[in-house]
Amino acid sequence: MSAATAGALRRWRAAIGDAHVVTDATALAAAETTTYRTAQRILALLRPADVAQVSACVRIASATGVPVYPVSTGRNWGYGSRVPPRDGCAVLDLSRLDRILDYDEELCCVTVQPGVTQERLHRFLREQGGRLWMDGTGSTPHAGPLGNTMERGFGLTAYGDHVGRACAYEVVLADGEILHTGYRGWPGSRSARVDRWSPGPQLDGLFTQSNFGVVTAITIPLMPAPELTQTAMFDIAGDAQLATAIDAMRALQLDGTVRSAPWFGNHYRVIGVVMRFPWHRTAPPLRPELAAAIAAENGLAPWTGYAALYGSAAQVAASRRRLLAAMRGTVRRIEVFDDTTLAAAPISARRNVQVAIHRAYTGGLLNAAQRAYWRKRDPAPADADPDRDRVGFIFVNTSLPFRGDDVVRAQRVAAEVILDHGFEPSFSCHSIRERVLQGLSTFAWDRDVPGDDERALAAHDEVARRFISNGWYPFRLGLHSLHLRDHAEPVQRRTVAAIKAALDPAGILAPGRYA
Amino acid sequence: MSAATAGALRRWRAAIGDAHVVTDATALAAAETTTYRTAQRILALLRPADVAQVSACVRIASATGVPVYPVSTGRNWGYGSRVPPRDGCAVLDLSRLDRILDYDEELCCVTVQPGVTQERLHRFLREQGGRLWMDGTGSTPHAGPLGNTMERGFGLTAYGDHVGRACAYEVVLADGEILHTGYRGWPGSRSARVDRWSPGPQLDGLFTQSNFGVVTAITIPLMPAPELTQTAMFDIAGDAQLATAIDAMRALQLDGTVRSAPWFGNHYRVIGVVMRFPWHRTAPPLRPELAAAIAAENGLAPWTGYAALYGSAAQVAASRRRLLAAMRGTVRRIEVFDDTTLAAAPISARRNVQVAIHRAYTGGLLNAAQRAYWRKRDPAPADADPDRDRVGFIFVNTSLPFRGDDVVRAQRVAAEVILDHGFEPSFSCHSIRERVLQGLSTFAWDRDVPGDDERALAAHDEVARRFISNGWYPFRLGLHSLHLRDHAEPVQRRTVAAIKAALDPAGILAPGRYA
Repeated sequence: MSAATAGALRRWRAAIGDAHVVTDATALAAAETTTYRTAQRILALLRPADVAQVSACVRIASATGVPVYPVSTGRNWGYGSRVPPRDGCAVLDLSRLDRILDYDEELCCVTVQPGVTQERLHRFLREQGGRLWMDGTGSTPHAGPLGNTMERGFGLTAYGDHVGRACAYEVVLADGEILHTGYRGWPGSRSARVDRWSPGPQLDGLFTQSNFGVVTAITIPLMPAPELTQTAMFDIAGDAQLATAIDAMRALQLDGTVRSAPWFGNHYRVIGVVMRFPWHRTAPPLRPELAAAIAAENGLAPWTGYAALYGSAAQVAASRRRLLAAMRGTVRRIEVFDDTTLAAAPISARRNVQVAIHRAYTGGLLNAAQRAYWRKRDPAPADADPDRDRVGFIFVNTSLPFRGDDVVRAQRVAAEVILDHGFEPSFSCHSIRERVLQGLSTFAWDRDVPGDDERALAAHDEVARRFISNGWYPFRLGLHSLHLRDHAEPVQRRTVAAIKAALDPAGILAPGRYA
Repeated sequence: MSAATAGALRRWRAAIGDAHVVTDATALAAAETTTYRTAQRILALLRPADVAQVSACVRIASATGVPVYPVSTGRNWGYGSRVPPRDGCAVLDLSRLDRILDYDEELCCVTVQPGVTQERLHRFLREQGGRLWMDGTGSTPHAGPLGNTMERGFGLTAYGDHVGRACAYEVVLADGEILHTGYRGWPGSRSARVDRWSPGPQLDGLFTQSNFGVVTAITIPLMPAPELTQTAMFDIAGDAQLATAIDAMRALQLDGTVRSAPWFGNHYRVIGVVMRFPWHRTAPPLRPELAAAIAAENGLAPWTGYAALYGSAAQVAASRRRLLAAMRGTVRRIEVFDDTTLAAAPISARRNVQVAIHRAYTGGLLNAAQRAYWRKRDPAPADADPDRDRVGFIFVNTSLPFRGDDVVRAQRVAAEVILDHGFEPSFSCHSIRERVLQGLSTFAWDRDVPGDDERALAAHDEVARRFISNGWYPFRLGLHSLHLRDHAEPVQRRTVAAIKAALDPAGILAPGRYA
């Protein structure tokens, strides 16, 4: 250990207490573990209690040159969890900053710290009477809205575009100073929690998918619970129907009929919600034909689509008529359900997937972490933790124009490559911004199966390579894909680097992450 | 003239041609003139033909240290027009960059250069069949969407939040390099025109209300023309009704019933659409009682509100029922109109204001510049140009939480101060982002009346001061209000300054503007 490192540890201990500077091997090994193979080593885990301690930790990093790698709840599963891109960082674990700082029911927003989990916020809103919804991400209830927003995560309600709506960031800069963005930085402003755009350059975007500062609070708008939510489910027979359904859905979202995020997924994706790998019927990989047969046995189509309608009963009825008119003929079957019809429906796999999606469309939480255990032989524990349980799971994400043809071609590319590597090509896409679809190719493996870790990263790289050659770039990078940033034009990268150098001259915040 | 200045002029002439480096006194005096008193002097007008010439002009500025001040169409009326905050800049007039670079009817977007005017884009979209709407600002048809977006202007359709929707900026940096933001900077990306969020820090916001680069193209999403638009007009008796109407409207916008920007304005604002100052009835200022009487004679209430409903006939009917149920009882009268009913209505002042607002809600253009001539004795010319015609006009804008109480209090403050200074306190507010209202206090005067210029700036400063003491800060700054930026916290200002220093170390882009 260098003198600088020893000095940093000594000063961090003095700043936040010995108990919160963790260096025991077990804890470090856990934090060095994600859902795929990594080699990076961590120096320590720092667990500050509040913003002042975060600031103190960062000042010490700047003074000593020993970098910190901030994580919020640390559940960036499928993207690298808590593992920094570079060796020798101290992980700055923000999970003890877990306060809900304010709540405004009139203007429908809440301000949270990084350690507030989805589960906590969801419970809090129910305790307030449930008049306002949060927009949950998939992942786990133990992930947090702040960290997810910084990575540009999303959900499925009308508030699915988290980063497009959040505002009023509190950011600890590399010099330890505390920046407030937007009107939060204008003393006494009455718009601080409701207006992202104060006079002058807009800074929020700089701190998302970046390493320019440590975000310690954001304000999140909340969706008023509508009188009625109806979810439409589309059974889609194959690629031709998928393309026309997606094009029809684009028009429905552009015209405001569908304010939720419409969602489309293949049979691998949908059966993964209700079952594990069918070991009793086949060895891996599960071929598309058998996947289709299993889906059919469970009342599910090769592709499934969803969209939710919000409003008064009359508004939902009018929008439902418009939706049915637009989609009928493009798909095999359309089923519309809501709380009442779901409660009355007999139990089935099909109903179970309906319950899950309807929950996501009505401000509820999913536990998608379970799905990552697809290839594990043991049942997923209630406290699913893929990092700990040697679950292999990875995202190959891509931004697609909201066009049927792009989706059909992209999922074919992904399916071919992923199957060739021995995995099941789960694919879904959804829209949180009307003209663009977030494509998610995922696959899961058992990290205890020799060779799968290597094959998985190879599959990721090959899908990403072929996506990029078609003009479908990623929208979010993980530890395994940070190098894809190099595809951006030199001037864009140089601009980012110049801002990084201005804001963090010693390069002590998350070196190698995005910028 | 210093050697540096002479050298810069010589090099600019070589780069873009003698004819496009304008130094004649008449042209410079015109560009030094806005709708209120200024003293800044301009060195020259540079009129590059294309992006390469913009880049060349900026490189020369960096090399010589002689600053440039970019303007698009130059019609930033009420905010300073083309006048730079500092003496000795060359105005970089981008109006010759007037190409519509692409148009995508499937994904509903268009890419424009700074010289493309609203009128031009509006005509272009009609020529394509009128299936897509632009969202016009007030101001003049000769203003441009790009410059307006960079200043965070707005309109009234569902796409009123221009800066929240635009993407894919092309930016000439201070070193002459050309930055493409978002996926526009990822070669061959199919999402370049539809997704604002490529991997890594989001840069777009940096170039709005800033002096960090010269934006030479943006992509603008276009709204598909709905089957039906109905506009609701609310006659509001006074402050108490205004407060309850605004609170009721907040709920209607939050629940998605009202996707347009709801709008509220006082009698000064509304009668300004259909008449000039009533010289035959009073000397200035027009007192509120007489304004109310004149409004009543024209079938208009003390306050007027509007909101548009978009969709199929059935969707609009369902939303209309919800809107009527929510607003009835809060206001004196509600009238709903559309293209058909307006065509059948007899001519009246009331119908004229309805035609104007309905045009704005249906992708049409207004000519609000006429309104600035309120105090001029001569009729406004067809080619209204307030700068040229010695029209006094100024904005005192403010971000207000979407709450009736804030609006009522803010407009009272503005009315009291502006009347005390001898002007008519026009006030309106509207919402493009659900939780916040853009408040606009304006007043107009005749610059040929001695003393009015001085009284006007004093009135602006006093309203702004009192707004700020209540927590209502501006959302957009003009030449007359750039100093209000100093109210932001030191860390926010230092952060902006650090980025400015990184991107424009010589400080040659619009020195003193915002950053």
